[in-house]
Amino acid sequence: MTYICCSMENQVIKHTNSLKKLQMEPLLPYLEMIDTEIKATPFPNKSLYEPMEYILGLGGKRIRPIFTLLGAELAGIPAKDAVNQAVAVELFHNFSLMHDDIMDRSDIRRGSPTVHKKWDEPTAILSGDAMMVMAYQCLIKNSFDATTNLIKVFSKMAIEVCEGQMDDMSFENQTPSKDQYIEMIRQKTAVLIGASLQIGFLVGKDDSEAADRLYRAGVNWGLAFQIKDDYLDLYGDEKIGKKIGGDILANKKTLLYIVTREKASAEDLKTLDYWYNTNTIKQTQVSESEKINAVRGLFDKYNAAEESLTLAKLYFKKGNNLFNELVLPREPRKTILKLAEMLVERDF
Amino acid sequence: MTYICCSMENQVIKHTNSLKKLQMEPLLPYLEMIDTEIKATPFPNKSLYEPMEYILGLGGKRIRPIFTLLGAELAGIPAKDAVNQAVAVELFHNFSLMHDDIMDRSDIRRGSPTVHKKWDEPTAILSGDAMMVMAYQCLIKNSFDATTNLIKVFSKMAIEVCEGQMDDMSFENQTPSKDQYIEMIRQKTAVLIGASLQIGFLVGKDDSEAADRLYRAGVNWGLAFQIKDDYLDLYGDEKIGKKIGGDILANKKTLLYIVTREKASAEDLKTLDYWYNTNTIKQTQVSESEKINAVRGLFDKYNAAEESLTLAKLYFKKGNNLFNELVLPREPRKTILKLAEMLVERDF
Repeated sequence: MTYICCSMENQVIKHTNSLKKLQMEPLLPYLEMIDTEIKATPFPNKSLYEPMEYILGLGGKRIRPIFTLLGAELAGIPAKDAVNQAVAVELFHNFSLMHDDIMDRSDIRRGSPTVHKKWDEPTAILSGDAMMVMAYQCLIKNSFDATTNLIKVFSKMAIEVCEGQMDDMSFENQTPSKDQYIEMIRQKTAVLIGASLQIGFLVGKDDSEAADRLYRAGVNWGLAFQIKDDYLDLYGDEKIGKKIGGDILANKKTLLYIVTREKASAEDLKTLDYWYNTNTIKQTQVSESEKINAVRGLFDKYNAAEESLTLAKLYFKKGNNLFNELVLPREPRKTILKLAEMLVERDF
Repeated sequence: MTYICCSMENQVIKHTNSLKKLQMEPLLPYLEMIDTEIKATPFPNKSLYEPMEYILGLGGKRIRPIFTLLGAELAGIPAKDAVNQAVAVELFHNFSLMHDDIMDRSDIRRGSPTVHKKWDEPTAILSGDAMMVMAYQCLIKNSFDATTNLIKVFSKMAIEVCEGQMDDMSFENQTPSKDQYIEMIRQKTAVLIGASLQIGFLVGKDDSEAADRLYRAGVNWGLAFQIKDDYLDLYGDEKIGKKIGGDILANKKTLLYIVTREKASAEDLKTLDYWYNTNTIKQTQVSESEKINAVRGLFDKYNAAEESLTLAKLYFKKGNNLFNELVLPREPRKTILKLAEMLVERDF
């Protein structure tokens, strides 16, 4: 057996800096709890497990497992009692990243080569498969009455994530309506955030109605998070190392694109189609930045950024309203609201 | 929602003929139970689910879920009480086939195009992922006290199947010893047969010790099954539509190959290496059958087939011994022993 150690130590520092930048210091103890648990997870010394250690060590803000821990506190139990379920959620998230990267032909994740690039596709498929199984194993550790319910909630979420990814891929060949797009990101991204919170709560309390409301709050926050993420891909701070305009270069039909298409004049539509033609860059001599600037110009002309951010805030508030209808312990309540706010207010 | 219907009707006929050929008519009621349940499974009308219907409709003898149903009867409950768990096992098996076919670059399964050939790789990855989640969903249907235990047993098995597939792939670049080969097929194939039986039993009886013994019996039968399968790939009946010698053409290091290597003279070893060089056929003008005949000649010279079959029978008997130490109801006991015998005695 080997244990994740050196690379993970560096990661904890990375996460910590991440959260400090977000002024989310209250979350640091939760983060430490999650990373300590992941660090203590025995990864047998086999080629199947190295890619798991690798992707878990690439960073990320551990938002989903933090939601799980806070969900447990909302139910009145100590966060650490749900740490296995938090790790389950993080394992599932990283499984889906590993497989999505193959499907989306992505070579880089968080500044490093993706698993199928560093190793190969069979390794990424298989390591991802095993990671999903391990997520289930974590979910039922320290088993209790809630086990069956946890498996149900988790599996429903997992199926929706697959459906969302399938729809996302289908958008390569057809432009979705705004509603179709929202439904896609709901399944692909938001339900996992909702389920993370719900699962933590269910560990502590057998109250399906409250858990369901938390789920719906989390889903709305997740929608806000994803819309903001799309926005930041183009309008974010280049300094954090993320390539600006990656979605445009990949011809991704984000909300910015859909909003623009809905309102664009016939001529602008033609221009947009020209740039979103997969081969535009290859066929002509234009640079990547020329494409990004041209498309951003159109987005700006039709106030796509503003409309996106307005929608993100709307979902954020809808999440808050659902959340505020519940009577919950003060401390975790405050922290969650701050975390949700960060999802939509962050600049990176 | 669409339901598997027309293609499945044909499948039931195919399975039925399959079992009749094997003179396993007593298994027909079990088969019908499984296929009725799969047929009743709602597959939402989405591109994610079509590949599942397709692969489940390709045939196969449904050996694993039949073991699950018989396991339930061994525990003294009606087979139908474990039908959801039987479907779980079959879904998992087909998930692993779907992903293995991508990794192994297999274009044909049971005479039809594999999922990633009929659709594409992303669809096969994602549909497989969702299928594994659905296996977990089936596993906990009509939930009861055994749920946590079922998830544990199932997940341990699933991880081993992934590890086995990883080892199998690694054998492309290195020749395993006989022990390493047996360990690989134990993980890749045999543990699923063991777990299928164990799971059915656990649905009916909270007796981990007996369940574990059944698991070990099933694992030994599974080893016998796989060794026989490798044998039949080369020495089987061409009439059943299976291509003879596929393993040799794919340079698969089966037990036949390993046994031969162990005993071969330096000169024969050189010949074997020549034929197992990936590019032999491409580089030279020899036909596929020339390669198969040459390699089979070497296998025959060193009695590889005989040694393989002897080992298969050894595992079969080991399985029987483990099984016979348990006091079990007469009818399912007899049927299981007959099924196990079929695994090693079948000619196709």
